[in-house]
Amino acid sequence: MARPTVLTRPALADRFAASARAPGALLSDDEFDGWFAGRRHASRFAVERIPLAGLRGWHEDPGTGNLVHETGRFFTVEGLSVRTGTPHSWMQPIIQQSEIGILGLAVKEFDGVLHLLMQAKMEPGNVGLVQLSPTVQATRSNYVGVHRGRPITHLDYFTQPGRSRVLVDVLQSEQGSWFLHKRNRNMIVEVTEDVPEHPDFCWLTLAQVRRLLRADNVINMDARSVLSCVPEPAGDEGTARHSGGELLRWLTDVKARADLQQRLVPLRGITGWHRSGDAIRHDEGRFFEVVAIEAAAGNREVGHWTQPLIAPVGQGIAAFLTRPIGGVPHLLVQAKMEAGVRDVAELAPTFQALPANFAGAPDRLRPRFLDEVLAASGTALRYDSVQSEEGGRFHHATNRYQVIEVGTGFPLDEPPGFRWVTPGQLRALLQHPYYVNVQARSLLAGLGAVR
Amino acid sequence: MARPTVLTRPALADRFAASARAPGALLSDDEFDGWFAGRRHASRFAVERIPLAGLRGWHEDPGTGNLVHETGRFFTVEGLSVRTGTPHSWMQPIIQQSEIGILGLAVKEFDGVLHLLMQAKMEPGNVGLVQLSPTVQATRSNYVGVHRGRPITHLDYFTQPGRSRVLVDVLQSEQGSWFLHKRNRNMIVEVTEDVPEHPDFCWLTLAQVRRLLRADNVINMDARSVLSCVPEPAGDEGTARHSGGELLRWLTDVKARADLQQRLVPLRGITGWHRSGDAIRHDEGRFFEVVAIEAAAGNREVGHWTQPLIAPVGQGIAAFLTRPIGGVPHLLVQAKMEAGVRDVAELAPTFQALPANFAGAPDRLRPRFLDEVLAASGTALRYDSVQSEEGGRFHHATNRYQVIEVGTGFPLDEPPGFRWVTPGQLRALLQHPYYVNVQARSLLAGLGAVR
Repeated sequence: MARPTVLTRPALADRFAASARAPGALLSDDEFDGWFAGRRHASRFAVERIPLAGLRGWHEDPGTGNLVHETGRFFTVEGLSVRTGTPHSWMQPIIQQSEIGILGLAVKEFDGVLHLLMQAKMEPGNVGLVQLSPTVQATRSNYVGVHRGRPITHLDYFTQPGRSRVLVDVLQSEQGSWFLHKRNRNMIVEVTEDVPEHPDFCWLTLAQVRRLLRADNVINMDARSVLSCVPEPAGDEGTARHSGGELLRWLTDVKARADLQQRLVPLRGITGWHRSGDAIRHDEGRFFEVVAIEAAAGNREVGHWTQPLIAPVGQGIAAFLTRPIGGVPHLLVQAKMEAGVRDVAELAPTFQALPANFAGAPDRLRPRFLDEVLAASGTALRYDSVQSEEGGRFHHATNRYQVIEVGTGFPLDEPPGFRWVTPGQLRALLQHPYYVNVQARSLLAGLGAVR
Repeated sequence: MARPTVLTRPALADRFAASARAPGALLSDDEFDGWFAGRRHASRFAVERIPLAGLRGWHEDPGTGNLVHETGRFFTVEGLSVRTGTPHSWMQPIIQQSEIGILGLAVKEFDGVLHLLMQAKMEPGNVGLVQLSPTVQATRSNYVGVHRGRPITHLDYFTQPGRSRVLVDVLQSEQGSWFLHKRNRNMIVEVTEDVPEHPDFCWLTLAQVRRLLRADNVINMDARSVLSCVPEPAGDEGTARHSGGELLRWLTDVKARADLQQRLVPLRGITGWHRSGDAIRHDEGRFFEVVAIEAAAGNREVGHWTQPLIAPVGQGIAAFLTRPIGGVPHLLVQAKMEAGVRDVAELAPTFQALPANFAGAPDRLRPRFLDEVLAASGTALRYDSVQSEEGGRFHHATNRYQVIEVGTGFPLDEPPGFRWVTPGQLRALLQHPYYVNVQARSLLAGLGAVR
């Protein structure tokens, strides 16, 4: 079989585009559905809420009240004090995890078409528990062996030079509301050697993966993040409303005016939150809770464990409004500041929030475009699915992801902090770290799946 | 006078290139030299070291021992605990300043040639006290008026939309060894309206500024940083050794393997350092001291003040080794981790260190390429000048900046953490935040001044 040897990004994009049109060479969609249902039922999983005091291997630091692991690794739950330039400040619990993990997708040609090696992976916070993850999803603690568990399957393709050709390798941020400065390495590598079969893994074309992106709670957050970084053909983007340079200068201006100050503080002392036996909760019941779970699974690196998770108090919505401008599709992005974001603000969907947080709030506190999002229905919903956020850190944290066509009658005004951009402009920024937040990346992956 | 209206980056680069060949329309080099000598002597400056207890408006926080200003603004001196993936950890004092300031250069055409509006500015830590700064150099505290001093001249060109056309606006990092996550906004704006004259300001062409970059301690750090962001013609770079994509993926890999963990701790508790009446010092006399000064000046926003400064224990060296590869000039960059860097590592000169820190150290602790740098002399020194670092935070902190031609006989090997790149590749990265550190930016500005 002749292999393409061209290494340029356009040529790569064409190869992924071909995969996005191709049926699977190894597994039909029906066969996948059967396999995946089997994986969901193959092992006996049990995840249950336990009291915070029931955590094993984790303890409350006597000085600070922070939740820490006995090894000093994995992550900690601490307090964060946030001050912004507007007279607004608050405290909240936050997950601190400074190490960089790998979200790695291996691809390989079968019958001349790129296939993606997906893993059926159980995470305790996932809806449905088992979802499709990238080939490898490993914290640094995992892959340097702190957990004393089994070696991670296929890890070498991502860490050993020469075992693969690296196509994508870029740091991207994760949830700014729940993590402090968290990011992971999003990798795509091409493998040419024979890959041993494994019951938890399957090879799918990009077309097959995109079919699953249209379903609820099948493709996990890490996979959606990596999929957003798949090189795309430049296509006929035509003329964007703003040049790339203008967008970068605008984002600098937004960041400089915001003056976000973040400081870790003892979890025990944070105001506005209280601790009961089973959770740390906001005094008004808003935002999220810190809870504890006990999990047992047959096919994870270690057999059973307990850990803290963040459980939001309701389902969120993350939505892009979209309309053509001069015939070219544009998305309305906002430069969104969140408590734990690494550098003040990142590009986010038009609307991104938990509506429950605004129940009973005065109009001036309601986020912009909430009404437009709640009113959308029918064919205006070009993409509409419910997806789980990182099931290793969050408990049943789901967002309804929507791309909403608002048509050429929708005003072109750009409120402060908002800009109309093309999907291609966002994808170009994904070659650099920390421009596009994780919710916007999920939507970009979803947008690729729109037929 | 016809004004060019083309807004593209190449056209802009050509206009700056023309300025880099032009004599001054307003001031000859001799006239500048006279004016600058006058500014250095015009006001009565006095800066003297005082005991730490002599600071006014600043106090030691009773809980932490941190040095803080009574307003809670400007900056603080705190403790930093650093852990890296290698078994290496330490504590040190660090300057914490989360707000984003403006380093702003206004440019305007005279006789069809762009001129740069430079300011003769006194900073207490500068060698020579008065150096040439950009048009505006303002912390957020300055420009929102926390200091209750005079308004900042020409600030509106950088903060009021419509007063200028923004050509460059990008966040760039500052010294990672002395600042935690510090960055400023580097701006270049084009003005077309009449600009009122002011005795501390002068208009120079880029050629005139570059002449001054070849002298010691005239162009201050903030000006060098902004000058490194001046758009350059792409020129005939030819083929670089690595593609831009390869460089970004390599940097991701370096960051992911390093595992830098930073945590603010009380200044009072840091190990390896001690406090006397006049300074906080490293127990072995290495690295730097935290000192206090009293300054009085006629033309600064406030008439006189005291403040802490960081005083390094010796002069540093920052040097790029350069050689042609396939006829194309390349620089050897390192991905350098420093205590306070925002995201693990940034691209730095081949060598960047205080040689005094390694006096008496065993060979394995000597930084790479120290011998090559110390041996360089004569025509191999394509650029060689001593420059001051930020005189508002550092006391007589100088580096010898060198670009050293090593010739085609020099090995092309790239030790771990090093890569050969073209100057054009570094300049392209300067359109994004936090890729190129402040010492490398000073050298890029200097390289532009090489005849």
